[in-house]
Amino acid sequence: MASISVLHWHRFLGLAAAMTLAFAGAAGAQPSSGTPASGPAAMAPAMPGAAPIDRAKILSATGVFGDFSVYKLRGEYAMLPAADRKAAAAEVLAVIDRHKDKVTVDAYLTRGFDANSDYFLRVHAYDLAAAQGFLTDFRATRFGAYSEVTENLVGVTKGLNYISKDKAPALNTALFATTYTDPAPRYAIMIPVKKSAEWWNMPEQERMKAIVGHTETSLKYLVNVKRKLYHATGLSDADFITYFEVNDLEAFNNLSIALMEIPENKYQPRWGSPIVLGTIQTVESVVNTLSMTDRGM
Amino acid sequence: MASISVLHWHRFLGLAAAMTLAFAGAAGAQPSSGTPASGPAAMAPAMPGAAPIDRAKILSATGVFGDFSVYKLRGEYAMLPAADRKAAAAEVLAVIDRHKDKVTVDAYLTRGFDANSDYFLRVHAYDLAAAQGFLTDFRATRFGAYSEVTENLVGVTKGLNYISKDKAPALNTALFATTYTDPAPRYAIMIPVKKSAEWWNMPEQERMKAIVGHTETSLKYLVNVKRKLYHATGLSDADFITYFEVNDLEAFNNLSIALMEIPENKYQPRWGSPIVLGTIQTVESVVNTLSMTDRGM
Amino acid sequence: MASISVLHWHRFLGLAAAMTLAFAGAAGAQPSSGTPASGPAAMAPAMPGAAPIDRAKILSATGVFGDFSVYKLRGEYAMLPAADRKAAAAEVLAVIDRHKDKVTVDAYLTRGFDANSDYFLRVHAYDLAAAQGFLTDFRATRFGAYSEVTENLVGVTKGLNYISKDKAPALNTALFATTYTDPAPRYAIMIPVKKSAEWWNMPEQERMKAIVGHTETSLKYLVNVKRKLYHATGLSDADFITYFEVNDLEAFNNLSIALMEIPENKYQPRWGSPIVLGTIQTVESVVNTLSMTDRGM
Amino acid sequence: MASISVLHWHRFLGLAAAMTLAFAGAAGAQPSSGTPASGPAAMAPAMPGAAPIDRAKILSATGVFGDFSVYKLRGEYAMLPAADRKAAAAEVLAVIDRHKDKVTVDAYLTRGFDANSDYFLRVHAYDLAAAQGFLTDFRATRFGAYSEVTENLVGVTKGLNYISKDKAPALNTALFATTYTDPAPRYAIMIPVKKSAEWWNMPEQERMKAIVGHTETSLKYLVNVKRKLYHATGLSDADFITYFEVNDLEAFNNLSIALMEIPENKYQPRWGSPIVLGTIQTVESVVNTLSMTDRGM
Amino acid sequence: MASISVLHWHRFLGLAAAMTLAFAGAAGAQPSSGTPASGPAAMAPAMPGAAPIDRAKILSATGVFGDFSVYKLRGEYAMLPAADRKAAAAEVLAVIDRHKDKVTVDAYLTRGFDANSDYFLRVHAYDLAAAQGFLTDFRATRFGAYSEVTENLVGVTKGLNYISKDKAPALNTALFATTYTDPAPRYAIMIPVKKSAEWWNMPEQERMKAIVGHTETSLKYLVNVKRKLYHATGLSDADFITYFEVNDLEAFNNLSIALMEIPENKYQPRWGSPIVLGTIQTVESVVNTLSMTDRGM
Repeated sequence: MASISVLHWHRFLGLAAAMTLAFAGAAGAQPSSGTPASGPAAMAPAMPGAAPIDRAKILSATGVFGDFSVYKLRGEYAMLPAADRKAAAAEVLAVIDRHKDKVTVDAYLTRGFDANSDYFLRVHAYDLAAAQGFLTDFRATRFGAYSEVTENLVGVTKGLNYISKDKAPALNTALFATTYTDPAPRYAIMIPVKKSAEWWNMPEQERMKAIVGHTETSLKYLVNVKRKLYHATGLSDADFITYFEVNDLEAFNNLSIALMEIPENKYQPRWGSPIVLGTIQTVESVVNTLSMTDRGM
Repeated sequence: MASISVLHWHRFLGLAAAMTLAFAGAAGAQPSSGTPASGPAAMAPAMPGAAPIDRAKILSATGVFGDFSVYKLRGEYAMLPAADRKAAAAEVLAVIDRHKDKVTVDAYLTRGFDANSDYFLRVHAYDLAAAQGFLTDFRATRFGAYSEVTENLVGVTKGLNYISKDKAPALNTALFATTYTDPAPRYAIMIPVKKSAEWWNMPEQERMKAIVGHTETSLKYLVNVKRKLYHATGLSDADFITYFEVNDLEAFNNLSIALMEIPENKYQPRWGSPIVLGTIQTVESVVNTLSMTDRGM
Repeated sequence: MASISVLHWHRFLGLAAAMTLAFAGAAGAQPSSGTPASGPAAMAPAMPGAAPIDRAKILSATGVFGDFSVYKLRGEYAMLPAADRKAAAAEVLAVIDRHKDKVTVDAYLTRGFDANSDYFLRVHAYDLAAAQGFLTDFRATRFGAYSEVTENLVGVTKGLNYISKDKAPALNTALFATTYTDPAPRYAIMIPVKKSAEWWNMPEQERMKAIVGHTETSLKYLVNVKRKLYHATGLSDADFITYFEVNDLEAFNNLSIALMEIPENKYQPRWGSPIVLGTIQTVESVVNTLSMTDRGM
Repeated sequence: MASISVLHWHRFLGLAAAMTLAFAGAAGAQPSSGTPASGPAAMAPAMPGAAPIDRAKILSATGVFGDFSVYKLRGEYAMLPAADRKAAAAEVLAVIDRHKDKVTVDAYLTRGFDANSDYFLRVHAYDLAAAQGFLTDFRATRFGAYSEVTENLVGVTKGLNYISKDKAPALNTALFATTYTDPAPRYAIMIPVKKSAEWWNMPEQERMKAIVGHTETSLKYLVNVKRKLYHATGLSDADFITYFEVNDLEAFNNLSIALMEIPENKYQPRWGSPIVLGTIQTVESVVNTLSMTDRGM
Repeated sequence: MASISVLHWHRFLGLAAAMTLAFAGAAGAQPSSGTPASGPAAMAPAMPGAAPIDRAKILSATGVFGDFSVYKLRGEYAMLPAADRKAAAAEVLAVIDRHKDKVTVDAYLTRGFDANSDYFLRVHAYDLAAAQGFLTDFRATRFGAYSEVTENLVGVTKGLNYISKDKAPALNTALFATTYTDPAPRYAIMIPVKKSAEWWNMPEQERMKAIVGHTETSLKYLVNVKRKLYHATGLSDADFITYFEVNDLEAFNNLSIALMEIPENKYQPRWGSPIVLGTIQTVESVVNTLSMTDRGM
């Protein structure tokens, strides 16, 4: 939105980085979250040496918050001295490390695929305030300060509503029997979905029927597509955040078309807008690629 | 939208702060509202030592204006010298203190949850011009001057239209008998709602029936959700501003889904857009968190 | 959109102000309108000492153009030296004075009520080009140069189409018999309206019936609400600009709801978007409030 | 979008102006179009002393491209030294002169009438690439470089589809018999139109009937309104660009309402958005008015 | 969005250019893609002296990704010293050369035709990550760093779904028998298309019938229009990216109207938005034209 004098930013960010490191070394300090102890959203201080969240567990648990934040890097970032840009990844990694007992962070490079973003982050946390604590600290880094948020959706994981062991035992079995067999996914796609009032007002049996159709249609693509669902009604302007990982994008295109061809599609005023497609990368790789620095140098 | 030279801002804001303090000490001075005594919207001068508004009373009264303003902080704010950013909270608190006999102010941190905002304010006033007076002075502070308004909705509180003692005595009793029992709310959600022409043109009895359904559906969630309603037709581009406080976000997601599943949902061309979710914080905490300063230092 | 160096602006605007004053003193000079004498939109030069437009007359005449321009002040304005900001109101008033024989200007403060504006102007002129001449000169002032136009609608006043003495004599009589009795209005609301193709294609008798309903519904609120109508089809992206003045905002909310409840509402794809609510102020007061200066100092 | 240092712009533009003049004096040079001779869009070099396009002929011919580009001037333009702004019109006129054998250029001042523009240009060319050549060079001038394009539509003129001598001889005769009798038009209005799939899928006879209705309705306004039609389907996001010139804006409002009241209106998902209203001026006058300079000085 | 100090950009970009050249000369170095060797999106290093992709083959193969990125040049670009702007094309060409074994790049000048762009690129790659690799490096050039992405769509080529040899042999034969006979195309048009849920839920035979109608309608225009189709469902917010090359724009307008007149048009909630029309040029020509430099100097 507005210009930033390189010189001043440089000084500020140098200072901020110093502060961040200083704070990181001080037990209990909360540099950028700054919530007062008496405040209603007070968060536990970061524990030095705290054990990281169990990634496998948080990725499969229900009641977990998924916070998808999509960013476009400001043009001025490229103006920072190369030394600063080279230090950006380390600074971000330090923030992630500081929050590793409360959140997990996945990163995706979207530049070249999407007009409104350069990368996006997927943060998981048992407590949504912890995701906010991390993202607030992330925005205080060099790299985060030059990142403009263009989309941000929050959802929560839940058990299966329709294709459960009780309601649809055979399909439930088939669902869990079909596993991804393609090479490791190189791409992720995030698609927000909103269902119409007509959908939500349908008798549950009709919705059940529609979801059975959806699942049967999807089944054969599960060898090519990993997926994860977040419920967002009332938390963000979407009902669901659907997240996919694939290696074979043409298979994903075919799955998407198959899902367009079933009646459920008639009840989706929002499917995408935006569809955010990115390559799956380490945080370090995303920051370095957009910082135009080579870690090997 | 545009750049601000740090140096000049620094000087200007130092000056403004000095002016604000000077004005604050002068009985009857109106530094930034500047309304001429003869003007049609002339507001009473701030009384030094005036008693603050009774918060419990204004929160429960009808005929009270609620002014929701949503802000995104400009990137340049981070460029200000750390000393200035550290002083930001005190400056905002001084403005609030100066207006404490005319408005109450609640603050929420939204960074990390919403692409279009970093925080929002909820201002209550018996006279809407007093809310404008406060917000105009707030925008003249260091922190306010770097805040861009991304949404602003104005509504007024009224008595119950449908579930009143007269019209629906049993439900009215149930409504007031069900009270919040969860831990203190840590999150607030603001959802603007617009009803369609079809809704407004329905016979009152049909709308009554719909609202009864709405209330019965909501009833069981009132142990998890506090709520407050503002009427906005003709004042802003919405018919209602619905405001919620919760500790259990999954319960709020479940309530939201339940409200999607009733016929009323068919008559709501706007529900959200935006949904603004934030953590409930003190003004001081919001300003300090976004200023990346630690009051404890 | 873009940054402005304070120093350069200061110099430029100092110069511009000097030019404006110089021009103002030179009979027939047209500093910023600059229309060539031979051009098709050539406007009469401002007459020094020319008589101002008769306000009561232009406000009640038909065939008068109403030009509503809505502005957001750029952040950089606050950077100008206080002396310049203090001089802003006088500079704007001088421009208004120079055009006082061709236009009338009303001003409204919207900051704190609307995300997309800080103030708006309502200009009346018998010749629309004269409104353009004024607004072009206004934009050349210090204050105008820092104002971004966020909405601009042009309409023309006409006689009553439906509730005329001929077509609906009783209602016409009632309409003119009901007069505003509240304290002087402190608030104004501008609401653009667009009617659907279905509305415009209804037989005139049906539209007549709808407008009779509209008028009957409105009648009882006329003690609380002043209103004025401008026709905009083909001149701006709206069919009507509706303008209201009130002291009692809750009464206005009730009137607005009453108008939602009549069939006419089904034929209005645009009603608001934006609704612009402001406090009625003098131009001087609006400029000073947003300039954070106190004329009394 | 972004800031421009006055000093650097000044130097750059001084240089650019020098280059432009230098190029203008060199036969065959194409400073900013720069199309390689071998490229598919190679354009004939500007001939020094080439005869200008016959304006009457190009305005009445079919197969002619109309390129409507709408601009908002960046705030920084006002920062340029007055001497530069004074030179702006001459520089633009030089570019027009250089392209006068390939395009005609009309200019309109919209400031004060439209939130998204200050002026617009209408360029006619037999070869659309020639319009691009001119507009590219225009954007390389001082004035053009500070102009942001907010709308740009391209269309082509064709013979009458429906009200032709063959298909509707009487109406065709009436159409050409009715001529503009008002004083010279001072205003122009550009209205993009998009027809719905339902319109395009109607049997041709029904569309014929609708257009006959349209023409009969319009006929009586042709004494007040000049009009011109461009076909845009597939070239821009509209089906038609309708262009009008009037002196009597109230008559144009009445014509517009009359066109709302015929069935054709039901098939127009886009009519306006934006409606762009401007005063008809010379290019020199538009540039000077927005440059706040007085040629007479 | 934000300002860039010319001096700093100049230094940075000089450095970046040096780095790019340095990297280009180092086998295996990946300056801006920076993907870790172990990452899921690891891309093969650019081979010095690697053979370029076979253009004819990749343009006719299925399973090929088409990446359309649309750009608007930031105003500050014009501020760079002329020497830098003159060097821009060579720098871009060097990046293209470095990726020539993995992608093909086509360029189009849109300035003067479209409000939201100055040029667009069409990149083809067998591996979509390779397109990202190129575009990331392109954005690191002088010219790319000043380019803002305003639209970006990704699609994949597939065999004919409906008008195949098996399903519609006669029409398939006619389709391949009709070839472009106009002079070499000078214009390209990119039109995104989204089909409605109603379309996708139609029985395949009905869709077949619609596509037969589409093809029969198009057939006679194939002498004037070259076309290519990309499937985008699930990859971008469109179902198809349709791409056309023509010399005769009026013929393209006629084809577009013919396609509006068939029932398929009723099932296309998106057709364009934006339509992007450009002149077909070499990359060098696009960069030079927008850099206002003349290679001949």
